[in-house]
Amino acid sequence: MTHRVGDIAAAIGATLEGDGDITITHAAEPDAAGPDALALAMSPKYAEALSKGEARAAIVWPGADWQAMGLEAAIIAPRARVTMAGLTRIFDPGQGFAPGIHPQALVDPGAEIGADVSIGPFSVIAAGARIGDRTTIGPLCYVGTGSVIGADSFLREHVSIGARVRTGARLVVQPGARIGSDGFSFVTPEKSSVEAAREEFGTSEAEGSAGQAYLRIHSLGGVEIGDDVEVGANTTIDSGTIRPTRIGNGTKLDNMVQVGHNVTVGHDTLLCGQVGLAGSCRVGNNVVLGGQVGAADNIFIGDGVVAAGATKITGNVPAGRVIMGYPATKMETQVAMYKAMRRLPRLLDEIARLQKAVFKSPSND
Amino acid sequence: MTHRVGDIAAAIGATLEGDGDITITHAAEPDAAGPDALALAMSPKYAEALSKGEARAAIVWPGADWQAMGLEAAIIAPRARVTMAGLTRIFDPGQGFAPGIHPQALVDPGAEIGADVSIGPFSVIAAGARIGDRTTIGPLCYVGTGSVIGADSFLREHVSIGARVRTGARLVVQPGARIGSDGFSFVTPEKSSVEAAREEFGTSEAEGSAGQAYLRIHSLGGVEIGDDVEVGANTTIDSGTIRPTRIGNGTKLDNMVQVGHNVTVGHDTLLCGQVGLAGSCRVGNNVVLGGQVGAADNIFIGDGVVAAGATKITGNVPAGRVIMGYPATKMETQVAMYKAMRRLPRLLDEIARLQKAVFKSPSND
Amino acid sequence: MTHRVGDIAAAIGATLEGDGDITITHAAEPDAAGPDALALAMSPKYAEALSKGEARAAIVWPGADWQAMGLEAAIIAPRARVTMAGLTRIFDPGQGFAPGIHPQALVDPGAEIGADVSIGPFSVIAAGARIGDRTTIGPLCYVGTGSVIGADSFLREHVSIGARVRTGARLVVQPGARIGSDGFSFVTPEKSSVEAAREEFGTSEAEGSAGQAYLRIHSLGGVEIGDDVEVGANTTIDSGTIRPTRIGNGTKLDNMVQVGHNVTVGHDTLLCGQVGLAGSCRVGNNVVLGGQVGAADNIFIGDGVVAAGATKITGNVPAGRVIMGYPATKMETQVAMYKAMRRLPRLLDEIARLQKAVFKSPSND
Repeated sequence: MTHRVGDIAAAIGATLEGDGDITITHAAEPDAAGPDALALAMSPKYAEALSKGEARAAIVWPGADWQAMGLEAAIIAPRARVTMAGLTRIFDPGQGFAPGIHPQALVDPGAEIGADVSIGPFSVIAAGARIGDRTTIGPLCYVGTGSVIGADSFLREHVSIGARVRTGARLVVQPGARIGSDGFSFVTPEKSSVEAAREEFGTSEAEGSAGQAYLRIHSLGGVEIGDDVEVGANTTIDSGTIRPTRIGNGTKLDNMVQVGHNVTVGHDTLLCGQVGLAGSCRVGNNVVLGGQVGAADNIFIGDGVVAAGATKITGNVPAGRVIMGYPATKMETQVAMYKAMRRLPRLLDEIARLQKAVFKSPSND
Repeated sequence: MTHRVGDIAAAIGATLEGDGDITITHAAEPDAAGPDALALAMSPKYAEALSKGEARAAIVWPGADWQAMGLEAAIIAPRARVTMAGLTRIFDPGQGFAPGIHPQALVDPGAEIGADVSIGPFSVIAAGARIGDRTTIGPLCYVGTGSVIGADSFLREHVSIGARVRTGARLVVQPGARIGSDGFSFVTPEKSSVEAAREEFGTSEAEGSAGQAYLRIHSLGGVEIGDDVEVGANTTIDSGTIRPTRIGNGTKLDNMVQVGHNVTVGHDTLLCGQVGLAGSCRVGNNVVLGGQVGAADNIFIGDGVVAAGATKITGNVPAGRVIMGYPATKMETQVAMYKAMRRLPRLLDEIARLQKAVFKSPSND
Repeated sequence: MTHRVGDIAAAIGATLEGDGDITITHAAEPDAAGPDALALAMSPKYAEALSKGEARAAIVWPGADWQAMGLEAAIIAPRARVTMAGLTRIFDPGQGFAPGIHPQALVDPGAEIGADVSIGPFSVIAAGARIGDRTTIGPLCYVGTGSVIGADSFLREHVSIGARVRTGARLVVQPGARIGSDGFSFVTPEKSSVEAAREEFGTSEAEGSAGQAYLRIHSLGGVEIGDDVEVGANTTIDSGTIRPTRIGNGTKLDNMVQVGHNVTVGHDTLLCGQVGLAGSCRVGNNVVLGGQVGAADNIFIGDGVVAAGATKITGNVPAGRVIMGYPATKMETQVAMYKAMRRLPRLLDEIARLQKAVFKSPSND
């Protein structure tokens, strides 16, 4: 597929300079860009590579002297990553899933399929499921009984949606994600060792072991997902116990994120790779949890919180706070503690010197 | 499906007060409960919501004045979560998998299928596999050659069971779990950099890199799983090398738990979300490992150990200990260290003041 | 399948002593070894078990007095794990996947299938995909459009390979791995809270939240994987944005490893279970990252680096360094800091004693 450079500039709302009639077939990094490529050179560090490459057209930083770098056309990108969003959307060839319902898909007669839906081979749509208009379901997927997938959604291959899941419009699900798995919720008939430990250390919910067999608490609540949500590869979202586990509009989950039963996540929140949210925790709006962040059960994380990668959140976090560490603290506290810790070995020497001066011996133990 | 309140009380072994003939169709939180719902109000904090709701019947805490809150019937719950176990079992509508072997399931003629087994569409049962009586295998599952699934088990969609896996009765497997993947076990022909590092820091097993190509140690041992085990969504359990990787009776694994090759886990142990057990580690009975806990290879974790979320266990842990931190210590040690660390910045000031008094200068470096 | 002990010794390049004509059917641990088993007793700690067992032949440590332990033949293993590699390869019965293309596999007429390829039931090979000679694709797999799988590869069940993935020869993929999922890359039209936090704390790339809707940056670059790579169960490798995400020759990934978009991993590197590599980070050759290690986006990890389990790497790491901790430091720094921390509570007492001696009061706050 070829595109006029002028059309690309118009489509992404950017300024064109030079010859808009040049046609290109793909985007490339400056040093790898041939004459058919649109070179991506959104900061001055790419100037040299650009001069040496064969690109005729490029996306450049504001103020770039693109003619001096041998270009015939330039698209000016004041905000590089926003430009990338527009550009990659234009050039994305997609996964190539065919339109229509594949003859080897298995759609229960009791399922309701919208207009212009695509369902891949060996996918199963259970009785009572509803698939919204223009939604694509990749190969080898499962959509469970009574579940509703919103319009204009896109499910990659190997996705499972259990029973009683309701999703909004424009859902994107990466391969192997599981939405609506059963919650991890067990109880012993009598008080357990974990309950005892929790009581001693002042934490809350009772779950645990004690030489007794576990009773299972079933998950009846399903999952409720807003509009414009993305769910990463091999991510798992458990059903709620009585009410649904909830993910708000515009929230994005990366790969291998674990969302426990009864969790509530607000809108426009980012959960990066391998984040784990334990049961019943509540995460606000516009939150960002970095990769491998963990949050304990039943806690509250306020709006706008930003947690650095690997932060382990063991208690409530007020809105707007930037946190890190295990256990999590405000980032500046963590930095101060860490600096002090690095001084510690030297401190031991200083104290020994003081002891010698005061007590005439390095230690009076 | 409707239930008499009196029947529910009897089924979960709880005391009924009031009109046992009231029928309800589902359970709900007190503020969302209509007249057909059984409101769940197992602690006094729900009293107000209950008074305002429309529920005619509720499960209440011992001593609740249920008539004053406008109820006509009450089930008394002395231990709330135990009551939830019984109640959610009664109301669980399940996943709706159909009975029998689906015509589009692929069952090898050399597989042995018990009585009243259900196998979903596009599932594959390999030669020599044995499926126990009354077991359900969801859609899109795979059961490998020579594997045995115990009676009364329930496998959700997209589960894989590799070759040489033997499971007990009443196994529950959530979507996307992998049991019997190959162990991660490689060796270099000559001693590697990791072996050198391990020797220097006094740890044990030899695995590693060195500019040499890796040789693969194959996994022949399979996996052996006891009765009443649950395996979470997208959890992985590797085969053992020579003898099986083992999971004891009554043990429950949450989502995305990693169990390495040759690991042994005892009975009635809980492994919460994203726990990782490295190869050959041994976990006792009635242990609880919180979310994101990691355990190093070849270590031993005694019976009844409780590890807080995100604990990283680098050495053996004696039975009964409550641990946390990275590296893990007894919880009280960790708390003491943490408190001291928070005092550190102030300590630096105190030492400077001492130095000034003793040496007549804040530091004599 | 039976093997002569002499043939086994020859196949793994080890020395045979005693009767090479003894035939055995499998390998076993010394205490479980019957007369048909080859007992694995590669260190003196197995001497007693061996004497008590029924094995006629064993693999033993150099210098073992095997005749005194009742054996009739012994294979001498100077390097135990290397011997295990050879031995387990000989005895591995494999997964039993049938040769040829299963009639219920779905191979697009536009796909190119090499000689002697095996494709399992309910697997889908998309248009434009190419499968190398002698490669096995297990049941319920998906290979996307335009992707190339090298010769002599082995994919277990439930694997997905998205569009635009190219792999080398002898690739091994465990169940449920996802190669070519879309990268987690979103941007807000205006500057976000994360960008602000990153600027304040001196880190780099801009991704984040701010009460604005996210724009998605699509993944066009695919994934490029070298020869002799192994990918663990439920591991995820995201496509690059413009250029491919890259994994070098001989590199092995354990279960549930997350490799973000644009990441580059060198050759002969080991990524253990649950490792997470954030977007655009670069990992060198012969690196070993222990279980649950995390690496921040855009950082560089040099050749030969060894990171202990659970290390959280937040900045560049020079070649050859052995690191641990959160945030990561040289291992010896971490050990010194940790020792000092354990002394901290006692230190507080010592300082109080100094204050008393100098100021005549335990504290002059």
